[in-house]
Amino acid sequence: MTLQKRVNELLEINLDNFGSDFLLTSEKSAAHIEATLLLAEIFSEMHARGKSFRIFDTGLAISIFRDNSTRTRFSFASAANALGLAVSDFDEQKSQIAYGETVRETANMISFMADAVGIRDDIFLGEGNRYMREVSAALDLGYSERTLHQRPALVNLQCDIDHPTQSMADLLKLRDFFGGATNLRGKKLAMTWAYSPSYGKPLSVPQGIISLMTRMGIDVVLAHPEGYGLIPEVTALASRQAEESGGSFAVVNSMDEAFNNADVVYPKSWAPFAVMEERTRLLKTGNNAKLKNLERQCLASNAKFTDWECTMEKMRLTKNGKALYMHCLPADISGVSCEKGEVSAEIFEKYRAHTYSEAGFKPFVIASMIALCRLENPNKFLYKIINRHKKRIE
Amino acid sequence: MTLQKRVNELLEINLDNFGSDFLLTSEKSAAHIEATLLLAEIFSEMHARGKSFRIFDTGLAISIFRDNSTRTRFSFASAANALGLAVSDFDEQKSQIAYGETVRETANMISFMADAVGIRDDIFLGEGNRYMREVSAALDLGYSERTLHQRPALVNLQCDIDHPTQSMADLLKLRDFFGGATNLRGKKLAMTWAYSPSYGKPLSVPQGIISLMTRMGIDVVLAHPEGYGLIPEVTALASRQAEESGGSFAVVNSMDEAFNNADVVYPKSWAPFAVMEERTRLLKTGNNAKLKNLERQCLASNAKFTDWECTMEKMRLTKNGKALYMHCLPADISGVSCEKGEVSAEIFEKYRAHTYSEAGFKPFVIASMIALCRLENPNKFLYKIINRHKKRIE
Amino acid sequence: MTLQKRVNELLEINLDNFGSDFLLTSEKSAAHIEATLLLAEIFSEMHARGKSFRIFDTGLAISIFRDNSTRTRFSFASAANALGLAVSDFDEQKSQIAYGETVRETANMISFMADAVGIRDDIFLGEGNRYMREVSAALDLGYSERTLHQRPALVNLQCDIDHPTQSMADLLKLRDFFGGATNLRGKKLAMTWAYSPSYGKPLSVPQGIISLMTRMGIDVVLAHPEGYGLIPEVTALASRQAEESGGSFAVVNSMDEAFNNADVVYPKSWAPFAVMEERTRLLKTGNNAKLKNLERQCLASNAKFTDWECTMEKMRLTKNGKALYMHCLPADISGVSCEKGEVSAEIFEKYRAHTYSEAGFKPFVIASMIALCRLENPNKFLYKIINRHKKRIE
Repeated sequence: MTLQKRVNELLEINLDNFGSDFLLTSEKSAAHIEATLLLAEIFSEMHARGKSFRIFDTGLAISIFRDNSTRTRFSFASAANALGLAVSDFDEQKSQIAYGETVRETANMISFMADAVGIRDDIFLGEGNRYMREVSAALDLGYSERTLHQRPALVNLQCDIDHPTQSMADLLKLRDFFGGATNLRGKKLAMTWAYSPSYGKPLSVPQGIISLMTRMGIDVVLAHPEGYGLIPEVTALASRQAEESGGSFAVVNSMDEAFNNADVVYPKSWAPFAVMEERTRLLKTGNNAKLKNLERQCLASNAKFTDWECTMEKMRLTKNGKALYMHCLPADISGVSCEKGEVSAEIFEKYRAHTYSEAGFKPFVIASMIALCRLENPNKFLYKIINRHKKRIE
Repeated sequence: MTLQKRVNELLEINLDNFGSDFLLTSEKSAAHIEATLLLAEIFSEMHARGKSFRIFDTGLAISIFRDNSTRTRFSFASAANALGLAVSDFDEQKSQIAYGETVRETANMISFMADAVGIRDDIFLGEGNRYMREVSAALDLGYSERTLHQRPALVNLQCDIDHPTQSMADLLKLRDFFGGATNLRGKKLAMTWAYSPSYGKPLSVPQGIISLMTRMGIDVVLAHPEGYGLIPEVTALASRQAEESGGSFAVVNSMDEAFNNADVVYPKSWAPFAVMEERTRLLKTGNNAKLKNLERQCLASNAKFTDWECTMEKMRLTKNGKALYMHCLPADISGVSCEKGEVSAEIFEKYRAHTYSEAGFKPFVIASMIALCRLENPNKFLYKIINRHKKRIE
Repeated sequence: MTLQKRVNELLEINLDNFGSDFLLTSEKSAAHIEATLLLAEIFSEMHARGKSFRIFDTGLAISIFRDNSTRTRFSFASAANALGLAVSDFDEQKSQIAYGETVRETANMISFMADAVGIRDDIFLGEGNRYMREVSAALDLGYSERTLHQRPALVNLQCDIDHPTQSMADLLKLRDFFGGATNLRGKKLAMTWAYSPSYGKPLSVPQGIISLMTRMGIDVVLAHPEGYGLIPEVTALASRQAEESGGSFAVVNSMDEAFNNADVVYPKSWAPFAVMEERTRLLKTGNNAKLKNLERQCLASNAKFTDWECTMEKMRLTKNGKALYMHCLPADISGVSCEKGEVSAEIFEKYRAHTYSEAGFKPFVIASMIALCRLENPNKFLYKIINRHKKRIE
């Protein structure tokens, strides 16, 4: 699809009523999702052509990382900068749960001149998304009371439920790889657990994938060893959505079954939901002895499934042996970053450039989310931005 | 007052001779204070209307926080960004006293392309302001020797003596609340100590308030338990200023007396001057055992005054029971952030939006201070900036 | 030389084929070195005159500091900002050696929207420069695979071999002090070891100086106590270059001999090459006991050479007693920052403003390096930037 065609499609959508937050893809309308994807594609294309899509003369983008991050941090910084915003990191004491007046007050105190707030909070099950909604309510309140001159866009940079900037970037990679959205219908995507020698990896990536891809008419198969299930509500949602979209959703306990005839495979480790629940309980009470014990148990359990590794052999099971391998990075690569991990070095290297370009969509997704959630009249603004042909270097 | 009227008033003031530093309100002329307030109001109004008041195409704003801070850090970042400057944080080893060549050299090394320097240093009594003056002298020297192409504006973001960005924001809140500067004459403001379960809170907020408000024809009452006095020179200054301004200044040892018929109350905890002096001595020598002991004594002393709490009952003593409650935030709220603190939850919630908007003036105060201290010909520039009608989002 | 003359000289050089990295001055052509110096002088002059040399509307400058730094950090931030780039610091775990996929992947993940990457990695002998070359290869790969829309400029902010932003700033100071490049021919520069009570200071400054200055027709004398040699390859290179440039290069073991009739002295401590090699071995194996022991030995060895101090008496040996004293700062100043150090307080203070202005060239050197390595058609762009007369404050 040409840039101009994308622009035309985007500007035919009424972009006005998308709200100020991007927290879960599942609560966003098809129009909002599609507009966000289109605008991200447009921004990426503009950037590749050396065009500036700066919208703000000044303004802050506040980042709140309640968990470590490199990729997402730089994606957010890139997006903010490209839009004309300066990143200001709110470096709260990490891994701590905040409630009530503290959240309400802080959210306002850091937002007087903010146009965007990005939050990553994925450590505690049941907490990350809740925290974001508290911030959201605080910003609404501050704006309604005129404490804030503007309501900043709030973007979920990963929570306990979803990782929308990742899943949207993944979807853009699929659209790019298969030549457009319509070509995704009927494709088989295997979101499968994979072995890792580490523990406590969040559920948000697989949850984000099944939440979003089941809306696109894709045949999504979620595969994991017994006991490694995701949040039940998310799995249920995926089923419903698949039915509505004309795709399908199945859960299996075999990596091979998932890989069989798949067009896309996404092998990635995560901790079982039940373990994450227990871990959250123990983290809250600060019971370190029990936490250590839980980790030991979980690693021992993982160790039973070292054959859940994406190898050349497994890839031969996929459609013509040529499925696209995806990963949110960094992957646990056997013999490279660990002795035995999620993927063989051979497969990883074969698809390395694909995984890099997959990640490369994220800054544009974030920029798109901010622009659509923040601008009061996006159609008018975007028409101007896209058509002014301003160069980034001059 | 309309925006245009404020602009007219501002541009009638000769803004050229204000110097490069904003360290203490007490050493600033009435014209400098008034111009800073007017410009902050203008910037705030411009921001609310979506107008850009960017002045710099590029340039750095250096922040030096020798103490933790969230609010002031974000206010400084917001102000710098709105003016077009990028914040670069000089992350010195905190809580350490620096002298001589180290200060002189560092001040120059970080300022080659700086247009503003903001310093917070309020831990050691007798040190924070002294440190700022050393930096100021170093910048003067560097500029006179042509090491620096420009003399950055130096702004006190809180020292041991004053907290000018806070007191100026507070004054803007009062002007806004009471409908203009002239309406403040004859109003009664109670700056009173309040109970807190913590210790070592700086004196700079109450000192800043009595230093500034006594110049405005306000009847200022400072209230605290015996032994909780401020730096004597500051109290003496407040007395002199009140006399000159036609206001008044009194020190009492009763919260009720201060609240009685007050138009404004500012209940806020601080450590006694004598304790802060002792604490500084002990911190310098690193005597941890004695520090612990001092803390214990101070908390025990505080505990005798738990009834110094701003409650609904106390508020009934004020003018028609309707005084404005102020706080620099975060407050110690009884039953919310601590068991018993400076203010009841009921009162805090009643005035919460007021305290938020009070804080909301700070970024504009800082921007105004930087602009007036940095620009060589402010009248000309500001006329241009205000009248170009450049939008912040475009 | 007037600004216009510098511009003319610069634009006569074909700036197109300089490559994307500035890692070692020794691998750069005379044209690239001269263009970088000229452009830095032009930028500095423009800045002094209040002109903006901003080139980028948006874009990131990534800094990777694998060692502590204040000066270089602020110089990089200043340079990036002046060009229009926002600094984003990649805060890797410090002092750790990274290889392979981790480096390749990270380099790409942080560079999607980066126009410049600056790296400081000078702790491990044999590692810093190697790491930079791995990053360089990763960026080349990412750009060739179209993961990256642009190839960021990569600038060495100090490695184990060279410190090009320092040596180039030093050279600009010399050109400024002696009135132009041609006046440097035949001048005698003494790069000499000096006593310091600390240990493990990197070799990159003296190595950078002898690598660069021997190309300028300068008579370079390297002086150090026996056993305090630099990397042998660098010393050999200096000899070869001196021959080619018509200058000279000698190594002596006497500070007095080096100072004798010198036009410029650069007394600065460093650790012996052999000690740095052993230190690297021990740091890699984490042998703390042996590291402690090595430090003790090295300090004991240093202590034999406390008379290697730049004093008034030593300065009298120089040409008319008036040699220029240089230092990369901070210096170990006897009686100021230590009991006995590299330079007497008297000499340091006499030349203090000179050392400050020496450091002041660094931001402009870095900006020049980035511009020339990043721009695809520098001549065209620079002509535009220099001639548009855009003010920095407006």
